[in-house]
Amino acid sequence: MNYYYIIVQLYSMSINVKEESLRLHREKRGKIEVVGTMPLRNGEDLALAYTPGIAGPCLEIAKDKENAYEYTIKGRTVAVITNGTAVLGLGNIGSLAGLPVVEGKALLLKRFGNVDAMPICVDSTDADDIVNTIKNIAIGFGGIHLEDIKSPECFYIEEKLKEILDIPVYHDDQHGTAIVVLAGLYNALKIVDKDIAKIKVVINGAGASGIATAKLLISAGAENIILCDINGAVADGDTTLNDPQQKIAKVTNRSLEKGKLEDIIKNADVFIGVSDGNVVTKEMVESMNEDSIVFALANPIPEIMPDEAKKAGARVIATGRSDFPNQINNVLAFPGIFKGALKVRAKDICDEMKIAAAKGISNLINDYELNEDNIVPTVFNEDVSNAVANAVIETAIKLDIARV
Amino acid sequence: MNYYYIIVQLYSMSINVKEESLRLHREKRGKIEVVGTMPLRNGEDLALAYTPGIAGPCLEIAKDKENAYEYTIKGRTVAVITNGTAVLGLGNIGSLAGLPVVEGKALLLKRFGNVDAMPICVDSTDADDIVNTIKNIAIGFGGIHLEDIKSPECFYIEEKLKEILDIPVYHDDQHGTAIVVLAGLYNALKIVDKDIAKIKVVINGAGASGIATAKLLISAGAENIILCDINGAVADGDTTLNDPQQKIAKVTNRSLEKGKLEDIIKNADVFIGVSDGNVVTKEMVESMNEDSIVFALANPIPEIMPDEAKKAGARVIATGRSDFPNQINNVLAFPGIFKGALKVRAKDICDEMKIAAAKGISNLINDYELNEDNIVPTVFNEDVSNAVANAVIETAIKLDIARV
Repeated sequence: MNYYYIIVQLYSMSINVKEESLRLHREKRGKIEVVGTMPLRNGEDLALAYTPGIAGPCLEIAKDKENAYEYTIKGRTVAVITNGTAVLGLGNIGSLAGLPVVEGKALLLKRFGNVDAMPICVDSTDADDIVNTIKNIAIGFGGIHLEDIKSPECFYIEEKLKEILDIPVYHDDQHGTAIVVLAGLYNALKIVDKDIAKIKVVINGAGASGIATAKLLISAGAENIILCDINGAVADGDTTLNDPQQKIAKVTNRSLEKGKLEDIIKNADVFIGVSDGNVVTKEMVESMNEDSIVFALANPIPEIMPDEAKKAGARVIATGRSDFPNQINNVLAFPGIFKGALKVRAKDICDEMKIAAAKGISNLINDYELNEDNIVPTVFNEDVSNAVANAVIETAIKLDIARV
Repeated sequence: MNYYYIIVQLYSMSINVKEESLRLHREKRGKIEVVGTMPLRNGEDLALAYTPGIAGPCLEIAKDKENAYEYTIKGRTVAVITNGTAVLGLGNIGSLAGLPVVEGKALLLKRFGNVDAMPICVDSTDADDIVNTIKNIAIGFGGIHLEDIKSPECFYIEEKLKEILDIPVYHDDQHGTAIVVLAGLYNALKIVDKDIAKIKVVINGAGASGIATAKLLISAGAENIILCDINGAVADGDTTLNDPQQKIAKVTNRSLEKGKLEDIIKNADVFIGVSDGNVVTKEMVESMNEDSIVFALANPIPEIMPDEAKKAGARVIATGRSDFPNQINNVLAFPGIFKGALKVRAKDICDEMKIAAAKGISNLINDYELNEDNIVPTVFNEDVSNAVANAVIETAIKLDIARV
């Protein structure tokens, strides 16, 4: 457990929020509840919802598994699964300590996407064991939402499950961040009038979200991306890198730049921080190209505070926080992603769908509304999840990965 | 898949019930729904239910896992798990085809016990794989309700999980039947004025519910029980029996009676059928002792129809059906069992708790109400789940297997 982060997290949280959140969680005993959809007032109700009527749906599904989408919760329900190894900024605090987070994701999926979600903790840190467990329980769900599983295992687990399962598997720490970063970037690039194919992007943080963001930006046309971590630029040939880092090194940093973030960030057009608080200085931002874009997404303390970045010349600044403009928040993506995927019974969530989702989000800000302080809609904009869902649906149908 | 049973099941179901049940399941898309318990109207709500406030509950649980009972759904939620190998009377129809049943159990747990329950299909028929999968996901739940897993694996799976887990594990096909049979038997014995220690009990069906019922009756003081299956009396030394049958043979049929049901049932005081429809004749009931008790629980067709059994001299008759008096229905037991177990955060559900639950159910029929056609309350008697829960709570505290 990384106590430094815990202390930062606790200090950054006002006593009121912390105490009030604990009180609320105690009062409600968790954030979700399971309720019935059918009445059970008398024997007739019981005969329809349970025996003997229930044999009808059972036999229809025994005949053809696809019928489960018609007669059960499968078609509107996802499992939100964590093993607690990378919870919030708190690190590996155990699977059960991740339960408030997966409950929270279930709450958000319902509120913003009208998706039913069941929070599940997998009490294992062995990647193959986790894959096997999720494979075994996936059949009753329409999708798998992975959450707060540490890197590099998260890549292996998601990849294996995508191979095995015929329902969408989506690791939010990777793709949620990547989609919303891309959504924000589309609009930020409009403001500074730069072309995604020509910009230099520096991503600080070579874990789940950093690597996934790099991959998605490449799929979206970015050609010059350099990832950094605490040891400096991620470069091909560095055998100290883990497997996912070695893979991403083959398609990023093609000029094989070496050095620390302070060297690499020079002449960058875009900085994307998915790392730690306070690791970017005013001088670093000053060394970026004109009209620079700074997404300082570390939570709760950004890599650089927005006012500092502004003073250092950044033109468009985003953070992960709701108390600054331009909140890059996964909540903009995942409820709509699953809403759309479930609607068409998608077999997968692929890069094209994620890019379409990002465009769906960015297009919600029209040209009149677009400005430095308004590049993404807020999470309470009720149009977001439908925009994302529609983008996902159209793409799934186009790519023939929809079942209906 | 046993097509004979499917045909029986379908024939026995009126077209209306079947069609209406299919229509209802299609309309509702399953029987349960996940809803939020906390509002998400604005940034303040989001800060309490999700980041940054959520770090509070996460850290409390990281400090002490027991705190999950305070801050999450664990303390009020069970997993209802099937692998679809013994669904209703339909046999092994696949894990997904069992989903309507586990959804149904979740609906019943909520309606009758106010217990939140998540239906989960485990897509495996390997007992160790199932044990490992359930072990891995159990941590987020307050209890495990196993459902429609075939014998003999169900015994091994439950036993292993009870060893490993510190939350209650309860296979309803075994214990639900056993508890409600015992509840009915207590009252039936009052009517015929016989002593449980002195009666001869014949149980037809040596699968999950037959063996579990035999075990519980022994714990409750029965001394002369003989199990039968399609090959006749289960007797010690028969190496063709499976492992759980060999074990139960050591404590039943001590006189090593051999023969088919028609031989064994002679001079029995109690017949308990958990087998197939129409396997008991009028002559067999006539061969029982005076004031015989016949629980013909096969569904939907009982081992012998109540009017036939009556004519053949049976004094007290019960079935599994709601359209005859004395419905022996698991719904009388499991909602209250889990309601009580969760209330005191029980670590286990043991025989003493099951016997107490049976007494709790039978005591709801007072001496004035008790008669041949009224030995158990109906499932819609709202006092049942509290009576069962209170019995479970008292016993858990007495035996020191409660956490609070």
